[in-house]
Amino acid sequence: MEEKLVKEIGQEGVSRRQVLAGTGALAAGAALSHLGGLVSSASAKDGSTEKWPWPYEKLDPEKTAQLCYEEWYRIFCGGAVISSIFTQLREKVGEPYKAFPIDAYIYLEGGQAGWGTICGAPAGANMVFNLIIGPRISGSTVAHKMCEDVMAWYSQALMPIYMPKNPKVTAELAKTVSNSPLCHISVGKWMKAANKPLVSPERKDRCARVAASTAFKVVEMLNDWKDGKYEQATDFNCGKLHGITGQQNCHECHGSKIPQAPPPPPEEPKKA
Amino acid sequence: MEEKLVKEIGQEGVSRRQVLAGTGALAAGAALSHLGGLVSSASAKDGSTEKWPWPYEKLDPEKTAQLCYEEWYRIFCGGAVISSIFTQLREKVGEPYKAFPIDAYIYLEGGQAGWGTICGAPAGANMVFNLIIGPRISGSTVAHKMCEDVMAWYSQALMPIYMPKNPKVTAELAKTVSNSPLCHISVGKWMKAANKPLVSPERKDRCARVAASTAFKVVEMLNDWKDGKYEQATDFNCGKLHGITGQQNCHECHGSKIPQAPPPPPEEPKKA
Repeated sequence: MEEKLVKEIGQEGVSRRQVLAGTGALAAGAALSHLGGLVSSASAKDGSTEKWPWPYEKLDPEKTAQLCYEEWYRIFCGGAVISSIFTQLREKVGEPYKAFPIDAYIYLEGGQAGWGTICGAPAGANMVFNLIIGPRISGSTVAHKMCEDVMAWYSQALMPIYMPKNPKVTAELAKTVSNSPLCHISVGKWMKAANKPLVSPERKDRCARVAASTAFKVVEMLNDWKDGKYEQATDFNCGKLHGITGQQNCHECHGSKIPQAPPPPPEEPKKA
Repeated sequence: MEEKLVKEIGQEGVSRRQVLAGTGALAAGAALSHLGGLVSSASAKDGSTEKWPWPYEKLDPEKTAQLCYEEWYRIFCGGAVISSIFTQLREKVGEPYKAFPIDAYIYLEGGQAGWGTICGAPAGANMVFNLIIGPRISGSTVAHKMCEDVMAWYSQALMPIYMPKNPKVTAELAKTVSNSPLCHISVGKWMKAANKPLVSPERKDRCARVAASTAFKVVEMLNDWKDGKYEQATDFNCGKLHGITGQQNCHECHGSKIPQAPPPPPEEPKKA
């Protein structure tokens, strides 16, 4: 799995050989030193928040989900996922969580300012993983794997899962599977099943509960990581299978007319 | 336009009346005080990075684009857009840019860990706008409007626009219009037009130039805002037209079978 992941990562700017050498993007950074001031200034950053992992104390998933549900009505899906976790860590840990501008992330709502791209719940989750555990440039691929896991989990879950205490909408809500981390698709499928418009209290409470369900899952994963128990649950192929970044349920959008990506060059023969 | 935007924002948790009263989500926060500890602890955050706007000094778009192009080969699209702007502001301004963990955002690559959702270039741009100018909870809708603008601009532009100094790929690259801010669609259309696979140096350099083109645009917009000259360029309807968050070129994914969203409730009659 580790080698598989770094093979995929190796498709981007950092060569597979560099990653396999265990130095990853840091080595690539050094290799890019001919770029002049940039790499050195990037390396000479303040650095106080760019040392990973950030200190983490285990949280209660249930409490976090309830906080997230309530925060949705203040700063919506992405902001609520981040806030429900970081507000508790500001109290339990302090910095660097206190210095992180949680409230900036309200724009993750509606698939980023209403454009229907990635749902704020997985977008917030991805951010939390990478801020706490660190990006793969820090030497760990765990956060990268958790992004894959949480987007797969979100896509496959019958949502919403989490039932808040004192929900604003007391009627039973429809549950749907999105098969996608995109807001437009996730919300659209739910609206169709529930026959409720975007502006309805039911749709809003559904989205608040989806965010809360995601915050619950994120804390479970972080707690497992803290206990040394986290193992990647999914085997996301990152474009390897069909030669382009994306999910592998191509037919759902493309129907039977799935475009063929230009083929990659033949692999170099293995040395004996 | 201002009233139109707040009408759209009013679809979410903050009521239109609260927004029109000029207090927006802050008033909503106060109204949610029955939620107990959450709102007060959220309000009692450290706060040093949650006061907007952050100090901003005008940057050179050309220099920023070149930095972004080079940074792509270190931390890819989303990270490169953020880094090209914030690294300069760390030097020109200092805090709060020094404390912001730029390198965490490598995961925005490939539409977030390779899932093909929102391209990291607009995802990074949206983040930069909201971190510098502030989210709409801060009292300004400018960053929200800029998100709409940059995603529309990205979708309509013949990309890549920016031609770096000393490009890594010297052959002329194909240019395409994505009609979408999604990585999968933007990259897929380019790969088809260029007949180049995901792993090719040409595709990588195309993405580096797309990120650089976006960083150029973001700095132009921020400079206009600093000069008091920014005006919203687009009229994004945020789901109003078709009753769901998303773009309005529905046919491109749905063909002729465009689903109908459940109708919103009739508008209240206007008082005389």
